[in-house]
Amino acid sequence: MAIHSLWNKYPTIQKELIETQKIMAKAVTIRNKEMTNALHLFFQSGGKLLRPAYFLLFTSFGKTPVQKHKYQLAASLEILHAATLIHDDIIDNSPLRRDMPSIQATYGKDIAVYAGDFLFTVYFHLLSQASGTFSAIELNATNMKKILVGELDQMNLRYNTDITVKQYLQHIKGKTAQLFQLSCYEGTQFSGCSKMTQILSQQIGYRIGMAFQILDDVLDYSSSEDILHKPVMEDVQIGNYTLPLIFAMEENREAFAPLLKRRVPLTEEELLLLVANIKKYHGLAKATKLAEHYTQKALQDIKKLPDIPERKILIELTEALLLRKN
Amino acid sequence: MAIHSLWNKYPTIQKELIETQKIMAKAVTIRNKEMTNALHLFFQSGGKLLRPAYFLLFTSFGKTPVQKHKYQLAASLEILHAATLIHDDIIDNSPLRRDMPSIQATYGKDIAVYAGDFLFTVYFHLLSQASGTFSAIELNATNMKKILVGELDQMNLRYNTDITVKQYLQHIKGKTAQLFQLSCYEGTQFSGCSKMTQILSQQIGYRIGMAFQILDDVLDYSSSEDILHKPVMEDVQIGNYTLPLIFAMEENREAFAPLLKRRVPLTEEELLLLVANIKKYHGLAKATKLAEHYTQKALQDIKKLPDIPERKILIELTEALLLRKN
Repeated sequence: MAIHSLWNKYPTIQKELIETQKIMAKAVTIRNKEMTNALHLFFQSGGKLLRPAYFLLFTSFGKTPVQKHKYQLAASLEILHAATLIHDDIIDNSPLRRDMPSIQATYGKDIAVYAGDFLFTVYFHLLSQASGTFSAIELNATNMKKILVGELDQMNLRYNTDITVKQYLQHIKGKTAQLFQLSCYEGTQFSGCSKMTQILSQQIGYRIGMAFQILDDVLDYSSSEDILHKPVMEDVQIGNYTLPLIFAMEENREAFAPLLKRRVPLTEEELLLLVANIKKYHGLAKATKLAEHYTQKALQDIKKLPDIPERKILIELTEALLLRKN
Repeated sequence: MAIHSLWNKYPTIQKELIETQKIMAKAVTIRNKEMTNALHLFFQSGGKLLRPAYFLLFTSFGKTPVQKHKYQLAASLEILHAATLIHDDIIDNSPLRRDMPSIQATYGKDIAVYAGDFLFTVYFHLLSQASGTFSAIELNATNMKKILVGELDQMNLRYNTDITVKQYLQHIKGKTAQLFQLSCYEGTQFSGCSKMTQILSQQIGYRIGMAFQILDDVLDYSSSEDILHKPVMEDVQIGNYTLPLIFAMEENREAFAPLLKRRVPLTEEELLLLVANIKKYHGLAKATKLAEHYTQKALQDIKKLPDIPERKILIELTEALLLRKN
């Protein structure tokens, strides 16, 4: 099974992620071959497997090297992530995902609705299988609810040109940071880390997630489709005003009003003007700086963890995410 | 809160269902007011609350009158049902549900996707809250997966004029009977019934569910929209060939081929011809008879349960469902 090249440098974690992918592939194998194939293809399309990776890395800080059901839990995090991606692509009418046609574009919205629902049941099933060893049910249920509330917040703020930085940060906290936080925290809980390490892991996960989403939103304006492996500037076309635009609007609201007030997809030319204005009014620079800030804070906290080899990987990985181009 | 008139005759269970509805309403109250209102309205739109009712009735057969978390579990069953209904309405492009515009028709498919997803998280959360008293997680996870596989089966068989009775029965087993079975079984498990009663409850739930779905499919052809409170003959228009049609096609496949081979929505006139042919080739009669058969089998099993007042309610309720007009 193909694993993202990001992990070539780390053979131990690479091996663990291959185990995780095997569990994922097996968990979605059902009598409906079309669905099974669609999901197998989706899982092999080059996701970075960041959430299981953070979970696995954090399990290393525990006293007891628990193995049983570790990969089930790692897999459950990626499966939940996949379910939300597939449903988000319906909402966003997104043609591409990870350089490939999205499930909704290939199979239609109907299959995409059920594919996401099916993954929710698989997620739930993996967690229930592991619950004999370690019950993460309540933790996951609470987090999953927060993720959905974050998605709803985002939808509520669509086409709202008065959206504030605070509102943006609140909804990405739910939409993205919550699952990173859960992944790290579940790792320390599962492996029986000290209370102190558990609290630290939550904070680290939260900040990594915030940095990750902000940079995602920066790349949406500054990257090209070739590099990003998904369509660029899709967000603004469907009324999701993200941080670079919000910062730029704070500096000069009038520069954006004529482009945004019609609430219709912008032309090629208008998009270029929009990006030019976002740059001119420091939207990209300010957003990048905030992503850096969250990353630095996360790194400071990671350095408070016990000095084991995985700590170095956590540092390198978290730094690499800030420098990523897709 | 309004409760379906079906329960007027049974004040005890009516009171318990009101408690269940309160839990449901509270569980979906979040900061997103639009979503909260949409779901409150949906819950008050006159569903029969059959799944929580069967669960609650079956808890009466236990030795220990457990109360804690009982209504959470009852609510979780109806919430899961609601989640699948809302997503089904997206797939079916359904304008009406319970006499009211469906969520997807009122708020759009986007909101409907998230509304269903949100209900999955609420379901999961209610189960996790109850898991201190009684862990139904693994049971629910397994069942939920089967429900989804049933929905996928149905989608796979769309527009398949060679669909067999056996294939139909297999997919309604997943799609509908599974949740009735879970509701009854969870009731006996929760209240600590004997192994014998637990097994019986599964069988009863399964048969009630089969009868219920078959009759639903009969009513789709034989009722009017005024009585059914949802659009009639919607299934055939989207290629879901249900039991009355399958039985009729078994008798005379040629009578239906010209109507179905185009795979496009039928005109008013064609629909009338279709129904006439279904009647002519005994589709409605045979399907009704099979629903009666499942009901009779369920009643036989119910009569094997201990003779407490709730047994009488189970009998009356199960008989009433067979005679229902919507």
